[in-house]
This record gives sequence, C-alpha cells and structure tokens, in this order.
Amino acid sequence: MRAVQLKTPVRPKKLVQGDTVGVVAPAGPVNPQELERGLAIIRGMGFKVLLGEHLKDRQGYLAGSDADRAEDVMGMFENPEVKAIFCARGGYGVNRILPLLDSRTIQRNPKIVVGSSDITLFLLYLVQKCSLVAFHGPMVAGSFGCHPMKASKAQFRKILTGQKVRLSVPQARELKPGKAQGPLTGGCLTLLCRSLKTPYEVQTQGRVVLIEDVNEAPYRIDGMLWQLKKAGKFKGVKGVVFGEMINCHPPKGESGKIDDVILDVLQDEKFPILMNCPIGHGNEMWTLPLGINATLDTRTRSLVFKKSGVR
Amino acid sequence: MRAVQLKTPVRPKKLVQGDTVGVVAPAGPVNPQELERGLAIIRGMGFKVLLGEHLKDRQGYLAGSDADRAEDVMGMFENPEVKAIFCARGGYGVNRILPLLDSRTIQRNPKIVVGSSDITLFLLYLVQKCSLVAFHGPMVAGSFGCHPMKASKAQFRKILTGQKVRLSVPQARELKPGKAQGPLTGGCLTLLCRSLKTPYEVQTQGRVVLIEDVNEAPYRIDGMLWQLKKAGKFKGVKGVVFGEMINCHPPKGESGKIDDVILDVLQDEKFPILMNCPIGHGNEMWTLPLGINATLDTRTRSLVFKKSGVR
Repeated sequence: MRAVQLKTPVRPKKLVQGDTVGVVAPAGPVNPQELERGLAIIRGMGFKVLLGEHLKDRQGYLAGSDADRAEDVMGMFENPEVKAIFCARGGYGVNRILPLLDSRTIQRNPKIVVGSSDITLFLLYLVQKCSLVAFHGPMVAGSFGCHPMKASKAQFRKILTGQKVRLSVPQARELKPGKAQGPLTGGCLTLLCRSLKTPYEVQTQGRVVLIEDVNEAPYRIDGMLWQLKKAGKFKGVKGVVFGEMINCHPPKGESGKIDDVILDVLQDEKFPILMNCPIGHGNEMWTLPLGINATLDTRTRSLVFKKSGVR
Repeated sequence: MRAVQLKTPVRPKKLVQGDTVGVVAPAGPVNPQELERGLAIIRGMGFKVLLGEHLKDRQGYLAGSDADRAEDVMGMFENPEVKAIFCARGGYGVNRILPLLDSRTIQRNPKIVVGSSDITLFLLYLVQKCSLVAFHGPMVAGSFGCHPMKASKAQFRKILTGQKVRLSVPQARELKPGKAQGPLTGGCLTLLCRSLKTPYEVQTQGRVVLIEDVNEAPYRIDGMLWQLKKAGKFKGVKGVVFGEMINCHPPKGESGKIDDVILDVLQDEKFPILMNCPIGHGNEMWTLPLGINATLDTRTRSLVFKKSGVR
C-alpha cells in the first residue's frame, strides 16, 4: 500500500482566559434549559459568550432557516471579537448549510470549532475543504447541557487553551490489539455514511478514524459498517476508535454484543480497534483535534497527540 | 443530457396454476404466525410452496447464518421444480449475502423473484448484476402475513401470471405534475442510500424511481434524499413514485408534512413526482417489475407497463 502524504491542516489560535466564544446552532433546534446550563459551564471556564442571532430559532427539526443558520456560522468567523465557535447541539441539518458556507472566508479567519454528532459533516468540511484543524467534542446544549461531564470539562479547557493532555480510559476494550499513528478523522457513524458519494465524503486513508453513534439498532450499525467497508473506507485505515455506542446494543434476550457486531464486519481488517471510548453521546466526552496526528495504543487504551491542535 | 441506452433485462417465465414457488428468508428472522398466514394466501392463489431449509432459522437479527441464507436462495434457483422465489420478509441482512450469490447460476435459471424493503438490494442485484427483471412487491410473512392486501392479492397474481394490469390509485398526490417513461428501479429509501459507493449502487439515470420507507423520522427522510441528490442520483431521472411513507410524517405539533420535506429537497428537479402510492409497508401494495419500461402519469395517478414483466 502506498503511503498517503497528508498535509497537516492549519491550527487555529488557542483560547485564553477572557476570550469571547460564539455559540451557534447549525443543525437542530436548541432546548432553552439545556442551553442555559451549558452556557453557565462555558462562562465558568472563564470565557465570554456571544450568542448567534438565530441560536434560539426553530423551524420544524431545524434551528431556523438554512440561510439564517449559515449566516450565524459565517458571522462568527467574520467577527474579530470571536475567538472560537462552539456548536450548541447536533440533531439534523448541517448538511443543508454546507453549500452556503464560504471556505475562503473561513481560511482567512481560522478559528477553533467544536462539535460532534450531526456536526460531524461540518468538522469534515473544515478539515477537508478548509484545511483547518477542527475539534470533535462536547456541545454547549448537548453534552454540557445534559451530562455531568466532570472530567471532560477540564480536558476540554486544556485542549482548547493549548495545554498538553494524555487521553486514556481504563474501561476501553481492545477489539483488535495494536498501535497505530495517523491524522485523526471520523465522527458519528450515521453521518460518515451520509457523506458517502457526496462532495463531503469522509477521507479515511492513512488515518485514525473515530466512530460513534447513539440510539441505532445493532442491525443498523452492522449495515452502516458494511457500507463503509464496501465503499472502501477501511482501506489503508491506520486504526479505529469506537465510542460507547449508547443504546446501540442488542436488546435483552437477543444474543451477541455490539462488540461482536463490529468485529463481525471488521474481522479481516489488520488495524487496531479500541472500543468504548468517551467520544460522543455519553456522560463524559473527549475533545479531539481532527486533522492532527494521533497515536492510538490499545494496550494502554490511550490516544496521544504529539502536537497540540491549537497554536 | 445524453440519452442513456438501457437494455431490457431478461424476463422470467410466468407462473401458472399449480406451479411450485420457493419461499426464502434472505434477511431477518420470520414470525411463524405471519409466515403461516402468508403461506395460506399463496396456496389460496393456486401455487404449491417449497420452504427454504433455513426459512425458520434465527441468529439475532438474521434468519440464520449468511451461508445458510445464501444457500437457500441459490438452492431455489438451482431447483428445476421451483418456478418463482418469494421472499418471506425484509428486516436486515440481504447485503451480507450478496457476495455469496452466483450471478451466472442465476442467469442460467432466470426466475421470478418478489420482495421489497431490505430485499431492495437483492432486487437491484438481480436487475443490475444479473440483467433479470425482478419484482418489487409484497412478501409472504410481510405484507401477506400482516395486512389485508385485498386488492393487491389479485394484482400480484395477475402480474406474475402474465396478465395485463393498469395501476392507478385515486389517493395519490401530484407533488410535481407530468408524464414520464423509463425502466423502473428503486425501492426502500434506506437501502437506496445504503447502496451508495458500494458495488451494488442503485443506477437511476434514465429511469423511473420508486422510493418508499417506513418508521423513519422526517429529518432522516430529508437526510437520505439529500444524500441521493448530492450523490447525483436524481440526475437524468425520468420520474419518481413515492410510497405512503408510513410513520415518516412529522409528529403532531410540528409544522410541515412529509410532502413538504420531499419537495424541499427536490424543488429544483424537473421530473414528475407522484406521492402516496401503495409501494411498500402499507395495507395494499403493488407488484412492480423492476427493469421494465414504465409510464408514469401524475394526472391519472397511474403507472402503466406496455410490456409484461414475465414471458
């Protein structure tokens, strides 16, 4: 297999105490109570918040019109006061605003962007189309608004302010043992599949791939992994890190675990696979720089970055 | 746009009174009561049934192992006594047996195959890889085992025995008016998306495309149609026929109908779109020959085939 030469994307500037962060809802509508709880946590970290004009809009399953959601995102990139952009939550709808974003304006104003779940497609857009490091992590009204996030809060702050962290989690399971290194990519499995054959298709070759999802029946996980495999998306992959896959486990009385479902599809792959890492939809969640070289070691259940995701 | 020259696939031999049909479960496990109800209906049509050896197997969300399910399917093609193959139900798992099927054996023994839902990928395999007309229609333990199917039973029998039928349904809705003609393809939306970028990817150019699904939230329908669109799958399409989309409508209190969700994605397409046709998961269901030229007329809410799907 030819080695893929991957250019490190631009690293955004690190956050410092007192910085203003923009909060936007590029996907689904936001629950006001969860938003307030999350905003209190962000403020408690020492950051000021600037709320997107349409952050509280609602239009069916979307947080307002496509044009308004895209405008909120672009407005935060254009506003020199705003040092980072935190997504309020996922749900659905990032895909619909991707054609309305301006990659050149983003490249001229590289900033920290944090999100996950439906935001996966936005992160892939930033890394792949804008060559900007983007952060797979907790969301304001999502993880911060709904879960305790005790350990993850500190790690979130450290990563975004440029401090070194070593991520390791004892409860992770070695599905396939080994050590691997490559730029990090990935996100929510449903969205990774949704990207296939579109202009926003996830690039996985030579990379360490995050895969997580929530509330998907085991047969759906099976089907999605099958599609990624048949689409060639596991070819040349260096390693895979799975999330907790909350509420994706087989129902009681049905045999098999989600680990078996995963291994069944990936049994003939050679790369290491670490399972049950806090990368989405759980009580804790790592903040991870997509586009930065990651070293995965299943024995120590760790993910290490030599280089910070910010500068 | 260049016209696509599409070769008509081979039409299988029509069924006659007293013929034996094979019943197989290439996907999910079968409910015994639903199977018995469905078998009684098939027998009532004047056909004998041969049950696949593994028809009643169960392995988690699959009707037995991949090898056993594939063997049952291939066994029916190889058995000269069997004149048609009826799928018992969908669920999940056809994708997993596709690499285990033998297209040359199928081509040497062209037979009627009927199914829908998860079976979509098998039908696409038959039309696209084996150049065989395949039937999108009710399943033994599915539609026949669960729904009244009053009108559809007679139509099913007529289509498969080579009688002429004219399909029209007054409750269908014209989402985009017009008339179109092209070979029929399509099936369950989830599976059409699942096929993207795989060796079994649905071919839609120059065709009339069936799209149906069940129990998918409106935002999921939105996301799946978006993916098909961004994957170029509506380019050169002649017309689209949507099913009832049962339980895909927005919840009460949320604005918008599923029709609006569909039109929102397809608003700038030029082809006619007919909505709410009985093509899956409902009380009634048309039996339709994929691969055969269909004429769609939204004004008369009809789908007409000049040529029979059987010979």
